[in-house]
Amino acid sequence: MQTLDEVDYVSGRTRVFGIVGHPIAQVRSPEMFTAEFRRRGVDAILVPLHVLPEDFALVLPQLQRLQNLGGLVFTIPYKAQACALAEVLGGQAQAVGAINALARAADGRWRADIFDGLGCVEAFRRRQIPLAGKRVLLMGAGGAGSAIAAAVARERPASLAIYDVDPARAGALAVKVGATHAAAATVENVDVLMNATPVGMLDDARLPIAASTFPRGLVVFDAIVKPETTPLLALARSCGCVTVGGREMMLGQISKMVDFFYGS
Amino acid sequence: MQTLDEVDYVSGRTRVFGIVGHPIAQVRSPEMFTAEFRRRGVDAILVPLHVLPEDFALVLPQLQRLQNLGGLVFTIPYKAQACALAEVLGGQAQAVGAINALARAADGRWRADIFDGLGCVEAFRRRQIPLAGKRVLLMGAGGAGSAIAAAVARERPASLAIYDVDPARAGALAVKVGATHAAAATVENVDVLMNATPVGMLDDARLPIAASTFPRGLVVFDAIVKPETTPLLALARSCGCVTVGGREMMLGQISKMVDFFYGS
Repeated sequence: MQTLDEVDYVSGRTRVFGIVGHPIAQVRSPEMFTAEFRRRGVDAILVPLHVLPEDFALVLPQLQRLQNLGGLVFTIPYKAQACALAEVLGGQAQAVGAINALARAADGRWRADIFDGLGCVEAFRRRQIPLAGKRVLLMGAGGAGSAIAAAVARERPASLAIYDVDPARAGALAVKVGATHAAAATVENVDVLMNATPVGMLDDARLPIAASTFPRGLVVFDAIVKPETTPLLALARSCGCVTVGGREMMLGQISKMVDFFYGS
Repeated sequence: MQTLDEVDYVSGRTRVFGIVGHPIAQVRSPEMFTAEFRRRGVDAILVPLHVLPEDFALVLPQLQRLQNLGGLVFTIPYKAQACALAEVLGGQAQAVGAINALARAADGRWRADIFDGLGCVEAFRRRQIPLAGKRVLLMGAGGAGSAIAAAVARERPASLAIYDVDPARAGALAVKVGATHAAAATVENVDVLMNATPVGMLDDARLPIAASTFPRGLVVFDAIVKPETTPLLALARSCGCVTVGGREMMLGQISKMVDFFYGS
């Protein structure tokens, strides 16, 4: 029953999920996860939970005692620290050393994994762009880059090369996921170019690669969500390249995370 | 922006409120408070928080550390125990020894009060039915009755008499709020009859008073929310009495509690 005195999207039976971060106002998960719950006909909502760094270790284990809490999403600065809350760590989380989803499983145990990279792969799957057999260059070996590298490595690309402004960081990640370390960012002999650096975010007009044109057959991916069309994606489109954006990765990730929250 | 990928009723900027109880599925506060927030143009949501009795003392102080938590509502079985979470107890809470609202005040302190009784008084005010100068008989001296007695006593009725199946409980409450103890429930010399017992709830077809008719001028109030028309209210209406129901009390209470949460 919806009347003027009641809303129809939350009740005593609604399962509650949260996104934990600091700061919190900028997160997009509440509106996006809740939309995905609705699309699936699930009575659930995801709300922002602003936890200060000095409170994290005390607050989180108590939040886990809320009986109708279905799970938590973690964002900056908690993705590594949150690993300690899980009883079972998924393969991606083990490879990356961080989580972004913690789910109360049907058996009552807390399972965790990280879905940034799986979201990237899911975005390619939805667009029917295969990664198997392709030569991939990934730029950026930070948090997002690590997760994307771990997920892409599982897709059996012909090769996965990782570039980072910090060669040691790129090298360490390459070893971890069985990839190679690219000394420079160039699209020569590359089928798929992926950006996981922050270059091009918000008002940053720079490209993450020294290039003025791309071959038409190159597929270009950018993990950046804002703006939707980064300078990199704008250049790629102007060259006729197929592009995949951060919002697609985010939607793919949310879908995978809701699967995870609901045990599929 | 509302798209298929996003809902428009929760975001990273939404202030979060919760209702804490055990069990939780039956509560009506989430849909009703959230509707009141929306009506006022406030970006806030109230979600159910199911806390087990053995977890209450550990979980609640940690919930209070959530920076975007605006306040909590308490229901069965926590109204008395929750007093310990407050730094400042309001007058009604002091009189009743229980709270149902805990608010993070502008100065950062946690203020608490109980609004069941104030909600009843607010329902009368909205209907422009004065309690001042009236002879009131209140049936039931339990949790709801105590709160209603404390609030009605402040309205300067000509008299307030309290009846309970347990005479000692009625007597103790009468002393506490400066009322008199009624040895029997009768509408003789009564202007306003109030039911705060559970008699008539859900499928209970009984009346809380031995009566087959009421004088037309009697005002009859019932705190029961389900059903909206209790056997008591049905009889009162059949006798031409003005009636005030539990849902009106609940709406009055919600309005007063949102005032409290937002510092007015």
